[in-house]
Amino acid sequence: MRVGDLDEAALLARIVPGLPTQALLGPGDDAAVVAAPDGRVVATTDVMVEFRDFRRDWSSGADVGWKAVAQNVADVAAMGARCTGLLVALGLPPELDVAWVEDFGAGLGQACRELGAVVVGGDLSAATEVVVAVTALGDLEGRAPVLRSGARVGDVVAVAGSLGGSAAGWDLLRRGHTGAGSPRTAALLAAHRRPVPPVAAGPAAAGAGAGALMDVSDGLLRDAGRLAAASGVTIDLRRNGTALGEWVAGLVAAGVPVEAADDFVLTGGEDHALLACFPPSVVLPAAYRVVGEVRRAGAAGVLVDGRPWEGRGTGWDHFAASS
Amino acid sequence: MRVGDLDEAALLARIVPGLPTQALLGPGDDAAVVAAPDGRVVATTDVMVEFRDFRRDWSSGADVGWKAVAQNVADVAAMGARCTGLLVALGLPPELDVAWVEDFGAGLGQACRELGAVVVGGDLSAATEVVVAVTALGDLEGRAPVLRSGARVGDVVAVAGSLGGSAAGWDLLRRGHTGAGSPRTAALLAAHRRPVPPVAAGPAAAGAGAGALMDVSDGLLRDAGRLAAASGVTIDLRRNGTALGEWVAGLVAAGVPVEAADDFVLTGGEDHALLACFPPSVVLPAAYRVVGEVRRAGAAGVLVDGRPWEGRGTGWDHFAASS
Repeated sequence: MRVGDLDEAALLARIVPGLPTQALLGPGDDAAVVAAPDGRVVATTDVMVEFRDFRRDWSSGADVGWKAVAQNVADVAAMGARCTGLLVALGLPPELDVAWVEDFGAGLGQACRELGAVVVGGDLSAATEVVVAVTALGDLEGRAPVLRSGARVGDVVAVAGSLGGSAAGWDLLRRGHTGAGSPRTAALLAAHRRPVPPVAAGPAAAGAGAGALMDVSDGLLRDAGRLAAASGVTIDLRRNGTALGEWVAGLVAAGVPVEAADDFVLTGGEDHALLACFPPSVVLPAAYRVVGEVRRAGAAGVLVDGRPWEGRGTGWDHFAASS
Repeated sequence: MRVGDLDEAALLARIVPGLPTQALLGPGDDAAVVAAPDGRVVATTDVMVEFRDFRRDWSSGADVGWKAVAQNVADVAAMGARCTGLLVALGLPPELDVAWVEDFGAGLGQACRELGAVVVGGDLSAATEVVVAVTALGDLEGRAPVLRSGARVGDVVAVAGSLGGSAAGWDLLRRGHTGAGSPRTAALLAAHRRPVPPVAAGPAAAGAGAGALMDVSDGLLRDAGRLAAASGVTIDLRRNGTALGEWVAGLVAAGVPVEAADDFVLTGGEDHALLACFPPSVVLPAAYRVVGEVRRAGAAGVLVDGRPWEGRGTGWDHFAASS
């Protein structure tokens, strides 16, 4: 059965019943109503387009549904907030198999349950390619939002989650390794298809007193550069003896050449780890690993082992042809 | 210059500065922070896809930007709420002229200023066709949300805004009348390209004690049918001596054949008028015109002049081939 064989109501009836939808008022009226006990609401949106942001031969419907949730709850966590609701706008080709849409809904539901989110609303349209635009809402629970602009000289730079796995998985897919293979290969494919953002680490960082916090979605160097620019500082990352070195070693152990592993950890996107800067007096929440230090602003916004990075990649841009 | 010639930051720099973006925290961090003084937030999303929901040869970039705002603020108003923020997710073809995107941004800004909205966040991706997914947030200002399910037997049925103009304008475009023509023709084209939802009439209906309220986006008969089903009643619409008859007469005066005018008013979509049901004791807010009465549930959810409607159209469905 194809999407075009069903009307909107029939299509929704195959997705919505499997989703967690608790809210003051969930899907079905002109709009949802979501609790905002804090008196403020955090809001963010991310759009994923087939062929550009995912491929249906590389990721299942469930993988795409999972990722749409993951990248949005990561942005909410990156403000130090807890996700309170998702809205899911879909563009679907009429010739698309309804089974794909059902699988997408299943992945959406799984990610919601794993990552603590509910779907409160959505919309459908026909489209040439699959388009998924998710908006996430969040509650700050009385805390100030943690911005990119609050890093101070002397802060400890730390990451919750891990880096490089998604890019390494993407590289395997690009080279034709779409199946399981070894457990380590499977883990890299999973890191690309179903990233698990450390959602609890966002509020934890805010509660511990982090000065700056952001989601690493476009690669560590690029995103750390944005944080450095917003804060007017330089981020000095260290590989030796830090989690960065361990993540590189982990990729090498999984069969990734060392130079590529370095690139994946430093510049690969879509891991949805959290990058935080803490005053040196703070006891870091358990999820965080130290990766560097904040220095006075220099010529480069980001240094790796004290020097500007001269690797190949510098992160992902949707419209830049070469990356 | 083409979209693909610019990176995301450069493209955003051509749109965002012209937008009203006031919020507790606007675009630029991982997420926005919007005031929710009521302790609840209204949230709705609508997606528009090129070729399906609009055509670039029939609507300018500014028209598309306007309509994306209009249809979302209408959904917020339909809960009885006031819009507090919009998030705009865009899919853009790399070969698209940057001037189109700038024009889109200008229309977005114009609609925000006219309709009382601000843009608080967004996202960009490359896509094969233009995709616009907007999410709107709103504040209930201490009132209960007005649902589709609250119509009661004996209620007065009323509409704020007007009906039929958008479908009549679309029909002109479909038949090749893309230019100005007479003032009345121009008004129909404008009704299709830049609908003006009566946003203040949403909170006004809630304040006056409306039992049910919804946005008329898919045609009066279809949407009234949804309201009737949610409320367990029948909506009895009258054309004689009501605004419905006047809107039909207005279309006929603009050159629309009478049978088509009837269809446009009763089944045409995208006018974004508000349909409300008020207890008979209520003094209607000034924006509302009576169009019928709520009756005990019968075989048909909606009656026109006491009988089931036997016209050609029954409203718009994105995946139904015949409408």
